[in-house]
Amino acid sequence: MSQEPLRQINSEQLLVAARQPAVDAMRLHKLYHGKIQTALRCPISNLNELAIWYTPGVAAPCKAIAANPQMVYDYTHKWNTVAIVSDGSRVLGLGNIGAKAGLPVMEGKAMLYKYLGGVDAWPIMLDSKDPDKIVETVLNIQPGFGGINLEDIAQPKCFRILELLRQRAEIPTWHDDQQGTATVVLAGLINAVKIVGKKLSEVRIVFVGCGAANVACTRLLFAFGVTPQLCIVVDSKGILNKNRTDIKERRDEFVDKWKLCQITNIEQRCGGIASAMQNADVAIAFSKPEPDTIQFEWVKTMAPDAIVFACANPTPEIWPWSAKQAGAAIVATGRSDFPNQVNNSLVFPGIFRGTLDVRAQTITDEMCWVAANVLADLAAQRGINPEYILPTMDQWEVFPQMAAAVAVKAVSQGLAQIPLTYEQEYQQALEIIHNSREMTKLLVEAGLVPKEPNVEESKKNF
Amino acid sequence: MSQEPLRQINSEQLLVAARQPAVDAMRLHKLYHGKIQTALRCPISNLNELAIWYTPGVAAPCKAIAANPQMVYDYTHKWNTVAIVSDGSRVLGLGNIGAKAGLPVMEGKAMLYKYLGGVDAWPIMLDSKDPDKIVETVLNIQPGFGGINLEDIAQPKCFRILELLRQRAEIPTWHDDQQGTATVVLAGLINAVKIVGKKLSEVRIVFVGCGAANVACTRLLFAFGVTPQLCIVVDSKGILNKNRTDIKERRDEFVDKWKLCQITNIEQRCGGIASAMQNADVAIAFSKPEPDTIQFEWVKTMAPDAIVFACANPTPEIWPWSAKQAGAAIVATGRSDFPNQVNNSLVFPGIFRGTLDVRAQTITDEMCWVAANVLADLAAQRGINPEYILPTMDQWEVFPQMAAAVAVKAVSQGLAQIPLTYEQEYQQALEIIHNSREMTKLLVEAGLVPKEPNVEESKKNF
Repeated sequence: MSQEPLRQINSEQLLVAARQPAVDAMRLHKLYHGKIQTALRCPISNLNELAIWYTPGVAAPCKAIAANPQMVYDYTHKWNTVAIVSDGSRVLGLGNIGAKAGLPVMEGKAMLYKYLGGVDAWPIMLDSKDPDKIVETVLNIQPGFGGINLEDIAQPKCFRILELLRQRAEIPTWHDDQQGTATVVLAGLINAVKIVGKKLSEVRIVFVGCGAANVACTRLLFAFGVTPQLCIVVDSKGILNKNRTDIKERRDEFVDKWKLCQITNIEQRCGGIASAMQNADVAIAFSKPEPDTIQFEWVKTMAPDAIVFACANPTPEIWPWSAKQAGAAIVATGRSDFPNQVNNSLVFPGIFRGTLDVRAQTITDEMCWVAANVLADLAAQRGINPEYILPTMDQWEVFPQMAAAVAVKAVSQGLAQIPLTYEQEYQQALEIIHNSREMTKLLVEAGLVPKEPNVEESKKNF
Repeated sequence: MSQEPLRQINSEQLLVAARQPAVDAMRLHKLYHGKIQTALRCPISNLNELAIWYTPGVAAPCKAIAANPQMVYDYTHKWNTVAIVSDGSRVLGLGNIGAKAGLPVMEGKAMLYKYLGGVDAWPIMLDSKDPDKIVETVLNIQPGFGGINLEDIAQPKCFRILELLRQRAEIPTWHDDQQGTATVVLAGLINAVKIVGKKLSEVRIVFVGCGAANVACTRLLFAFGVTPQLCIVVDSKGILNKNRTDIKERRDEFVDKWKLCQITNIEQRCGGIASAMQNADVAIAFSKPEPDTIQFEWVKTMAPDAIVFACANPTPEIWPWSAKQAGAAIVATGRSDFPNQVNNSLVFPGIFRGTLDVRAQTITDEMCWVAANVLADLAAQRGINPEYILPTMDQWEVFPQMAAAVAVKAVSQGLAQIPLTYEQEYQQALEIIHNSREMTKLLVEAGLVPKEPNVEESKKNF
């Protein structure tokens, strides 16, 4: 994709192109009948080998683990596995579509975990929406997994679920819509403000939407150096301020939101998105997947060199070409078919690769910061510009680099059980991820994953 | 392996050979760091394809499934997935070693599901031993799976768990230690009695051990035509009869056992295994994995042309060479390194292949019977003899044949949502299983699953 395609094609054509992935997805999901399968990790060629991998030989590693449970990391695949857990209560921007309907996303996530991070992730779709049952089920399935990736769970329950699991689980728990998203937003923002010559500590950010993603963004960004007082948060009922009695009344439930009412918006502005966006340097939107959620006129009222992250999936809050026409200097979305994709897919494969490899017991804010810096630096090394603030997912060198940086941070924070150096983890991650990509290539070349000629054709639409 | 190696080598050498798999298993489980991984099911070669498999394209199949939940079978891998669920409370013959220690077995099982049946199975190890919590967790994780394989769960709770799940789950639930084991025992027994010229309806069987496996064996065999009155069941406290007050007092819990006290043992024999085995035509043992659980002298007292299935894992209740010396005409064990392996691995890959392919809602006794007949017939076609009563796991033609027979039975019983014919399912299963084996070969040849030279060497020990 060239660096400035949006100005070369008219918006009609762009809209058609933007709809193409959905058309292809329907055809190809059915054709391939899913996106992830199992494969052997060890050779098997005759009956004698079965005596090693299964009964009677398998009893020996079982007994070794019974004697010392930590050995499960040596004798099984636990070291490299992640459960992708969702109840389907908040899938993409589609809302509460349920566990079955959420499976295509979680399967896609498992695919990215493998292809980009060499991590063996498996979707676990939950038939309960009850936060306590979700926590209990996740705790119950821990023994076979090395990490937990919570996904697409509605707020506010997702905050409590994450908190409880981080307290009670013995393996690292991550809510990608919170931590992954905040990490990639931070990375994009670091480069975006650099391009327009502003400082992170001085920018006025309006957060459009106050769900899991934006609550986590405020946390991570404020901890990193963004000034809360200069920022404004808007939810579906309007701007957050000290007079929001609806939040105050439920402050036990909406702990973070009520805190945001206190620490942001020093002007105590009120009103809706339109009011919030006036003079803002940055808009970070994770709200409704409808192109008029942020209006053309509102972007016009932002400060010069405005930055707009319109991240709702699958449809951004404003089409990028529209935001640009309204004067935004830099526009990012959640989509891989537009420039500047702000998507947690840039984060979770690398951050979990590093976390698993040093067997870190949790994933801290500091680990997220180094991950964000790796992303920002790698794009900067290639040369950032308004259409390129973040690496793209096909710059796969990002993942081993992030893995190594995250691993070293975990080690330095005293959270890792395997004290790898940067170089050691970089080499290990490189090899694992390389092999994962080679495996995919090999399966396609051999016809075991059939090629689909029309994929090639559909690309021509771009 | 030649057909009668047991008489050619002395028992000392056999014992050394029998211990070799455990030695190799320790080394190789560590080297390969597990046995199962994920792999992509669809091609991915550039960023545009990510827009199809992940956001934004993926929203389209999500919405289609939200509108019609059955479509989850079309747009995801659910159609081909099985959760292998265990709490580690009764792993092999090792007892209650816990969820982590059970993982090597479940991972081995996932490996066999893939390699032999082309089924994508994933281990789910549970951190709770409470039957209600196990049921609840399994029901909770249903949406992402096409079937449930319960495994290595202690009795009597396993009976209730299976029963509840068969009532309440919307996908087929199978307890392999019950149904799988019973199916392969039936298959072996059909051929064993044929060899010695006896009739199934007339044989006196002593069941040594009254756990999940043997309770299920009695059920399936009695329903198939074995005469309960001629049979005797022995548990750790002795022979089951109407005077077993210990069982009577807990008959609500031990429903099946108390029923066995009523319908078996018309002679009302009492005592232990020694007493039970006198004049028995067949001994079917699923009890303690210790070679003196069944003693040499007791086998001597059996009827002429005795059949001994010593199935404890990893160590049979009597070493095969010992049982043979005591006069047994046919000896089978659970091990793949001895002749006549009676192991459910011959069953679950094929039975689930067929069940998943026609999307059967449950797995009935009748489906188990046809599976047993496929096994028995296939061995008979090759020519059965005392050292070959069942196909071995490397006769992989058994699995597509079983899949087709099971599928057709499910269709005829009105349980299938996809009414495939024998030929249709046979071709489909053949292709899926063939591809699965090809994938493994390919990964080994390309070095992505490294070859281990010492595997070759260890074979020389046999």
